[in-house]
Amino acid sequence: MRLSRFFLPVLKETPAEAQIVSHRLMLRAGMMRQEAAGIYAWLPLGLRVLKNIEKIVREEMDRAGGVELLMPTLQLADLWRESGRYDDYGAEMLRITDRHEREMLYGPTNEEMITEIFRASVRSYKDLPKNLYHIQWKFRDEQRPRFGVMRGREFLMKDAYSFDVDEAAGKATYNRMFTAYLRIYGRMGLKAIPMRAETGPIGGDLSHEFIVLADTGESAVFCDKAVLELPIPPADIDYDADLTPIIEQWTAPYAATEDVHDAARFESETPPDRRITTRGIEVGQVFFFGDKYSKPMRAVVTGADGVERPAQMGSYGVGVSRLVGAIIEASHDEAGIIWPDEVAPFGVGVVNLRPSDVDVNAACDQAYNALTAAGKSPLMDDSDERPGAKFAVMDLIGLPWQLVIGPKGLKDGVVELKRRATGERQTLPLADALKALGA
Amino acid sequence: MRLSRFFLPVLKETPAEAQIVSHRLMLRAGMMRQEAAGIYAWLPLGLRVLKNIEKIVREEMDRAGGVELLMPTLQLADLWRESGRYDDYGAEMLRITDRHEREMLYGPTNEEMITEIFRASVRSYKDLPKNLYHIQWKFRDEQRPRFGVMRGREFLMKDAYSFDVDEAAGKATYNRMFTAYLRIYGRMGLKAIPMRAETGPIGGDLSHEFIVLADTGESAVFCDKAVLELPIPPADIDYDADLTPIIEQWTAPYAATEDVHDAARFESETPPDRRITTRGIEVGQVFFFGDKYSKPMRAVVTGADGVERPAQMGSYGVGVSRLVGAIIEASHDEAGIIWPDEVAPFGVGVVNLRPSDVDVNAACDQAYNALTAAGKSPLMDDSDERPGAKFAVMDLIGLPWQLVIGPKGLKDGVVELKRRATGERQTLPLADALKALGA
Repeated sequence: MRLSRFFLPVLKETPAEAQIVSHRLMLRAGMMRQEAAGIYAWLPLGLRVLKNIEKIVREEMDRAGGVELLMPTLQLADLWRESGRYDDYGAEMLRITDRHEREMLYGPTNEEMITEIFRASVRSYKDLPKNLYHIQWKFRDEQRPRFGVMRGREFLMKDAYSFDVDEAAGKATYNRMFTAYLRIYGRMGLKAIPMRAETGPIGGDLSHEFIVLADTGESAVFCDKAVLELPIPPADIDYDADLTPIIEQWTAPYAATEDVHDAARFESETPPDRRITTRGIEVGQVFFFGDKYSKPMRAVVTGADGVERPAQMGSYGVGVSRLVGAIIEASHDEAGIIWPDEVAPFGVGVVNLRPSDVDVNAACDQAYNALTAAGKSPLMDDSDERPGAKFAVMDLIGLPWQLVIGPKGLKDGVVELKRRATGERQTLPLADALKALGA
Repeated sequence: MRLSRFFLPVLKETPAEAQIVSHRLMLRAGMMRQEAAGIYAWLPLGLRVLKNIEKIVREEMDRAGGVELLMPTLQLADLWRESGRYDDYGAEMLRITDRHEREMLYGPTNEEMITEIFRASVRSYKDLPKNLYHIQWKFRDEQRPRFGVMRGREFLMKDAYSFDVDEAAGKATYNRMFTAYLRIYGRMGLKAIPMRAETGPIGGDLSHEFIVLADTGESAVFCDKAVLELPIPPADIDYDADLTPIIEQWTAPYAATEDVHDAARFESETPPDRRITTRGIEVGQVFFFGDKYSKPMRAVVTGADGVERPAQMGSYGVGVSRLVGAIIEASHDEAGIIWPDEVAPFGVGVVNLRPSDVDVNAACDQAYNALTAAGKSPLMDDSDERPGAKFAVMDLIGLPWQLVIGPKGLKDGVVELKRRATGERQTLPLADALKALGA
């Protein structure tokens, strides 16, 4: 993509309303724009990151046995009356009345609807297990939306729902999702720590939150340093095998948010030099809640013994739009964002230091075409801005690599290659730089 | 994908409420489920088609110079008061009040919001042209939703918005979008005919609808047969060239919907043997409306002469979810759907006629793995249903190819390969069948 064709409205000033760094950087880098309190338009740079996160989530869900569908944003109030949650949900539920005075709502989650879809067609244990997920916009009418996409009102979420024949099978599915989540966050360059959690309005008694450590996190967390060094399960993990060892490995070191923290246990289980006390951002949560929805809503299957029983259910959320902010909270410096490779909006920034120079343009075009052909997704700054401004924008938007091409270097047959994360620079011939970038 | 893991709730009965064939077939094939009047959940089979359509639209928009962003579903009422459309829009606009009593709405289109985004950052003619698009769910509170996704309330649409420095540049962008639309529909296997159209609530005086011929279409259409034989512009078309010849070629033969039909002109311009009178489905519309939004909303740019002028705008819609229905209306038979290759939810159906037979299973697994490795996206029916039921489901869901593997054929070293569109069957060795399928 050439910057002249792209739409990248970076801001020179730091917006006064942004209290945390991800919010500030997303606004400054032209990733998004607020359209109403807690409601954002995703500008092209931000959307590219959002799509990369979506892609990782989708690939890992599919690998773990998930099947994707897509439920609508609006739902009937009556569906929520069946489960008894319509009145429970309070003011955070956006209630809507249509032209025929039907009561509807903008879905904050989809347990009821998926249960309705399931019960309409599944009858037998032979059709199980099923693990259905979607990636859809949801709405939560926060009293005081803030922190940008970290606590927005309209937000993108992946939510999966599993149906199993009995509790043992349901818990095996829970373990599969737990394992898939380790891979999802690992691929995004995040250390996300599973922590035993309360279940809140979703229900059930087994739940883990996945927490990314960051000073700006919404809750205090306490954990054993050992959990930060555990290996992410590999891509070829066998999801049909017993995954209990992985779950045990990841839940053995102490890790808890303030809601469930037990100071005495923390101190007895964790040596002082391994105790971490910091703050954390929740980027996902998994629940096993058995028949909480399937029983009142009569989503039953006939077992091998001919007896009908409610399906055993779990649900599994990933905060897709929130992750964009969480990754920035975990990966930035004074100059701007530092994108992990797999979520970066572009792979390489090509900086043309003098677009008025024929040779510089030719070298830039050569680099741009080679990088494009190699699938490295370059963004080429072909604007008339002065070099200092171009460098500042590149650091701000945080692409993993910067390839800087100017008249002085070209005279000596060299360009500059900079790694954003470390600031390391190499001066080398263009062909070598392209080779280093895999093009 | 193995059917045992997939979620494909086909219906045996034809639902009574479905009046047109695409609605009936989408329900019967387990592609979607109604969740409220005009609001559907996209089940896995339907979602795969929707995603394929989205992918074609995205690729062709990018090729033609579009840049993708994503605006939210909810908008502030005040934004629509700026353009003067808030009161105009009537009961079809779903109006919403949030917990703080702010007036909002579920966006039916986005001219106002994109103009607001544009004016916040673009100042100079040097930043033009810009062509920004998104693919997002929209809502139109239809008085009487019907015909399934053809006239739903919550629907997926691609809408693009262009900003140019003057009318000539704006019309060149209009021509680019017109040309891209020919490619979009052509790739989906559709003959979509551009017809001069009224502009309605969007405004302006230059507009074309793209119409697919189908007996069940919502409006009568009249056209010259010649338009059905025109060539689709090639993938390597130069969008920077003057596209007027393509536009002239496609608008020369008579083509009009009943709204603007001129019977006298039709008869004088079109020889009797080339006159087609039928019905059509609108699958997209393009508009050039100049400063209708940029003027009242003050989206101005400074020209080369230093004078500020409102940007010249156009908008360009493709009915993404509606297209799923439109393609079925145009491509089906008594037995079910016939998907054009590029939008098919799976490339090949592998029918295992006897899952209890070790050799049949081995041959099916071999075929499935080879097709998967070759990127042919197979769906393997590994269920216990009887052969007749399996054939009926395969015909119903309309995958382009069926590869049928059973014990009798295998004994003779052969399998059966069926082309869904023609019904043509070949009996041949498995290796040859896989070769024919490109695996």
